[in-house]
Amino acid sequence: MLMQILDYVGVAVFAVSGCIAASRKGLDITALIFFGVLTGIGGGTLRDLILGVPVFWVVSSSYLAVCLAISVIVWFTADSIEKLGKPLRWADAIGIAAYSVMGAGKAVQLGHSPLVAVLMGISTATFGGVLRDMVANEPSAIIKQEIYVSAAAVGASFYVTLYMVGVDPWFAAGIAGAFALGARGGAILYGWSLPGYGAPKTIVRWHGKKPHDSDKPDDDTTRS
Amino acid sequence: MLMQILDYVGVAVFAVSGCIAASRKGLDITALIFFGVLTGIGGGTLRDLILGVPVFWVVSSSYLAVCLAISVIVWFTADSIEKLGKPLRWADAIGIAAYSVMGAGKAVQLGHSPLVAVLMGISTATFGGVLRDMVANEPSAIIKQEIYVSAAAVGASFYVTLYMVGVDPWFAAGIAGAFALGARGGAILYGWSLPGYGAPKTIVRWHGKKPHDSDKPDDDTTRS
Amino acid sequence: MLMQILDYVGVAVFAVSGCIAASRKGLDITALIFFGVLTGIGGGTLRDLILGVPVFWVVSSSYLAVCLAISVIVWFTADSIEKLGKPLRWADAIGIAAYSVMGAGKAVQLGHSPLVAVLMGISTATFGGVLRDMVANEPSAIIKQEIYVSAAAVGASFYVTLYMVGVDPWFAAGIAGAFALGARGGAILYGWSLPGYGAPKTIVRWHGKKPHDSDKPDDDTTRS
Repeated sequence: MLMQILDYVGVAVFAVSGCIAASRKGLDITALIFFGVLTGIGGGTLRDLILGVPVFWVVSSSYLAVCLAISVIVWFTADSIEKLGKPLRWADAIGIAAYSVMGAGKAVQLGHSPLVAVLMGISTATFGGVLRDMVANEPSAIIKQEIYVSAAAVGASFYVTLYMVGVDPWFAAGIAGAFALGARGGAILYGWSLPGYGAPKTIVRWHGKKPHDSDKPDDDTTRS
Repeated sequence: MLMQILDYVGVAVFAVSGCIAASRKGLDITALIFFGVLTGIGGGTLRDLILGVPVFWVVSSSYLAVCLAISVIVWFTADSIEKLGKPLRWADAIGIAAYSVMGAGKAVQLGHSPLVAVLMGISTATFGGVLRDMVANEPSAIIKQEIYVSAAAVGASFYVTLYMVGVDPWFAAGIAGAFALGARGGAILYGWSLPGYGAPKTIVRWHGKKPHDSDKPDDDTTRS
Repeated sequence: MLMQILDYVGVAVFAVSGCIAASRKGLDITALIFFGVLTGIGGGTLRDLILGVPVFWVVSSSYLAVCLAISVIVWFTADSIEKLGKPLRWADAIGIAAYSVMGAGKAVQLGHSPLVAVLMGISTATFGGVLRDMVANEPSAIIKQEIYVSAAAVGASFYVTLYMVGVDPWFAAGIAGAFALGARGGAILYGWSLPGYGAPKTIVRWHGKKPHDSDKPDDDTTRS
């Protein structure tokens, strides 16, 4: 039940982020739906393939209906949504919070080790967005010097730890999700980042880009 | 039988498109074969993984033999093929027509819902080309303002609808494939496109690119 | 036993290459671990999904522990490792040698045909690096005019041939791996390449880039 709610939340908000990305590219309605579906179900599809269980949206096509409905709504409202400020980033952030908990939760329920569960949480949380960015030909948030993978890691490892010590799953999910969302939200609002690998020589060799070039917290245009 | 013919056609023409992309990059024969195989079997591999059935080319390696043969032929003839005009695009278009029908058909035969079947058709039809473009480091056709995903959607949904109402599968495949090919062909020949999401503010924020920048119907160089 | 050793070697050296790529981007420790894990287990994950067997690191999480340990080590030593010269390329080269043999070996042991086994070897050997480069937003080594896919093809086809004619697996693995490493090493050290597809008209149409633009053997910065 908890897992299913998180699944629907994750699918819905990732679908929003995919549709926003497509609307920014000026794509047509079919391509926008495609991006919504791809981003919405991408992470969960990878999770199910790796865990060797039936893919969730093949079992229940209501997930696809959710993506379709979201796509149509965003098609008519993307302009207004943009005015809320950084909608792609925030949808992505909620998705990371929901999916890091859910990916890890599904893996521990299947009896996998904590390490596998944490990695499943991180992969599930980040893969939809990575897919969206790769197909949209934009650099992924993963390679910006911001808290991104770290937020997913926080959500997944908090949930697994709390679950292991016997905390009620709903409570554990609430705590873990809140911390993940808080960590990513701090990056969006205040540009929070962890210290990056800063060997000067190396960085200069890397096309001469400074590591913090793209770390503009108020930039919600390209990848958001 | 019908499914198998469509499978071989899809594999063959997608292999051609992959090899043409590789020849344009001036790659060597091994890399050209790799691109041919990757593009040829990419879509069907994704379809089989998601549907949870054995991957088609692992079951019957004759598909790989087809890709190999095509690669060798293209290696010696790519120059002449180029003179036919937009070979990458046209091979891709025939592949989309064949695979959108076949991906949807395989899913309905396995008893999946129409929505799942249509999505499988679209994914199968577009994934090989997306993979080819991502590995070749070229922007995918999906993010150009042209009829591309829409053509796959037409093929998949026509086939599923006709199949559902009891039309003979061969006839349904012919109709659906022809409409898909026609839609994509119109985009290649006449630059057909559906209206894109056109919020001016948004588009200006998107790197200042206008949505129709890359919509040049006579451009068959980069992604085609 | 042989397969397992090759598996650990491949995972470890690919993890090194992923971490080096992340350190060059100046990423934080979580993102660096993510790149290490992604590159380390990417090829083997694809192999297991396609062969329809349980994913190796879900079965035994010690592979993830190896990636984690490697990531922490590289985080503290990447600077010194860089001084050894082209560490990303060399780690990648050893990984290709180990994984081309191992991917092919796992497929023949499961009773698949030689053609399928060779393709599994090539895919397993190259997918981790392709994934690393795509997520890092760098052009993949596959599209440079160097011996890369060819080295994997040498390793996989030598191993399958020797195994078929009844040579001892350890000996076959040694020979095949040495040839693969030698072929890739020649590309790194001396810029070895096979003749590329060189239709002048085509190449000029391809953004006007000459095919050997990026073939600088002493360039270990971007993709290495």
